[in-house]
Amino acid sequence: MVEGNFETVKADALAQVAAGATMLDINAGVTAVNPNETEPPLLVKTLEIVQGLTDIPLSIDSSVTEAIKAGLETAKGRPLVNSVTGEEEKLEAILPLIKKYDVPVVAISNDETGISEDPDVRFAVAKKIVERAADFGIPAHDIVVDPLVMPIGAMGTAGLQVFKLLRRLRDELKVNTTCGLSNVSFGLPHRHGINAGFIPMVIGAGMTSAIMNPCRPQEMEAVRAANVLNGTDPNCQEWIMTYRDHKPAAAGATAAPAEGGASSGGRRRGGRAARLSAG
Amino acid sequence: MVEGNFETVKADALAQVAAGATMLDINAGVTAVNPNETEPPLLVKTLEIVQGLTDIPLSIDSSVTEAIKAGLETAKGRPLVNSVTGEEEKLEAILPLIKKYDVPVVAISNDETGISEDPDVRFAVAKKIVERAADFGIPAHDIVVDPLVMPIGAMGTAGLQVFKLLRRLRDELKVNTTCGLSNVSFGLPHRHGINAGFIPMVIGAGMTSAIMNPCRPQEMEAVRAANVLNGTDPNCQEWIMTYRDHKPAAAGATAAPAEGGASSGGRRRGGRAARLSAG
Repeated sequence: MVEGNFETVKADALAQVAAGATMLDINAGVTAVNPNETEPPLLVKTLEIVQGLTDIPLSIDSSVTEAIKAGLETAKGRPLVNSVTGEEEKLEAILPLIKKYDVPVVAISNDETGISEDPDVRFAVAKKIVERAADFGIPAHDIVVDPLVMPIGAMGTAGLQVFKLLRRLRDELKVNTTCGLSNVSFGLPHRHGINAGFIPMVIGAGMTSAIMNPCRPQEMEAVRAANVLNGTDPNCQEWIMTYRDHKPAAAGATAAPAEGGASSGGRRRGGRAARLSAG
Repeated sequence: MVEGNFETVKADALAQVAAGATMLDINAGVTAVNPNETEPPLLVKTLEIVQGLTDIPLSIDSSVTEAIKAGLETAKGRPLVNSVTGEEEKLEAILPLIKKYDVPVVAISNDETGISEDPDVRFAVAKKIVERAADFGIPAHDIVVDPLVMPIGAMGTAGLQVFKLLRRLRDELKVNTTCGLSNVSFGLPHRHGINAGFIPMVIGAGMTSAIMNPCRPQEMEAVRAANVLNGTDPNCQEWIMTYRDHKPAAAGATAAPAEGGASSGGRRRGGRAARLSAG
């Protein structure tokens, strides 16, 4: 990208939109000596290229305030800003831009003290950001809180923490929510399987978006299934359109005994059904 | 089975145990003129055959009281009885057996009026069963309530209903829970995908078991992933043992852009991440 080659950017953008992405996160972070000088023009160029290819909304992803400002001047429509934190300096720099451009913002629940392992502290940081945003006249639904997902392999309670936090964020703060999804499976084998199990659980807990790779069929299938089950795919329309010609073999199914047929609500099990502990 | 051929029973039992079943549901329901006469000896014979092959616990599944009674006299260890309902006649017939043999029982939340579409009514029926069981000295944790899962294709709120009901059953009644899992996907294409999305959502909502086909790798992977994320697979041991040699291609993954690496809790997204709406 620094050398002016945006072929990977273009190919990824088109592939991700084709795979079902509903927003693209644009990040031009470079390991330069002075990102305040190099990142704004590079982010602007990347935004221009991507919005020349697709009209889905973009997320302006940078830790450099000048880059976010330049991005906001460039992006068409109503982009998302990624991100603000609970750090004073960040709040002062980013929130006025959010108000000025009337756009939503990702709020990461850490502050000057770092990322707390205590979910109550992370909730308190999110609450502070929401209150500060309200002072600027920014509504709660334009704050997209990232509760920060820890790797489950390193912290066995990471899942339970985030499910509880997501419910509180929705119920008490009325904010939207997101997370860097694949973080949860860091370090484990067959990460896509963990990710695909995590998606329905966070959607069930109230998560309203995720930052993820839409080119992974297993994860996207989990998103679509959870949307059906959560009542947000009316009449199962997207599910049926996507999978009506699905071939079981394509999903890696092995030979298995025929499954007992289910009836609609009456007695619902045959002699072949087996019971599995879920916990 | 009526003709004395138990080869399918034997093959299924061995395959299901090998696939990871933690209990086998034994049902010898036959379309006979008089099930009170024919079902008890057939259920006894089936139980004897299966417990000659495996020592995992069995579930005695019958709507015929005499068959349940004969099954309880036959089954080794501590079997589960499947099932009692909120119907007076059922409660009077089954609960004394549950007390006498000190075994857990599946409680289906319907009564003489049938299956209500109102989850509050289904909760009330479950509550009645728990209270009647308590009168017999049967503890709540030995009641395994089946909240009755409706097909999501026929009732768009079926998922939300059952998630809410499961939380109330756990929090207010302190019972264990189960369901005939594949009912939820009845009538939809690619049912295994819907089932695999449903499993993490019900586990997240507090479900403690499910009646399902353990020979389906996609559904079993969802169970294992949800157990990791719910903190009930300590140190991810079962996940790692099962998937440490997993080959991505075997799961039907197609060629996809490399996924951005996740770091453990710090800034967690690269320029390639995309955002997906979960709702």
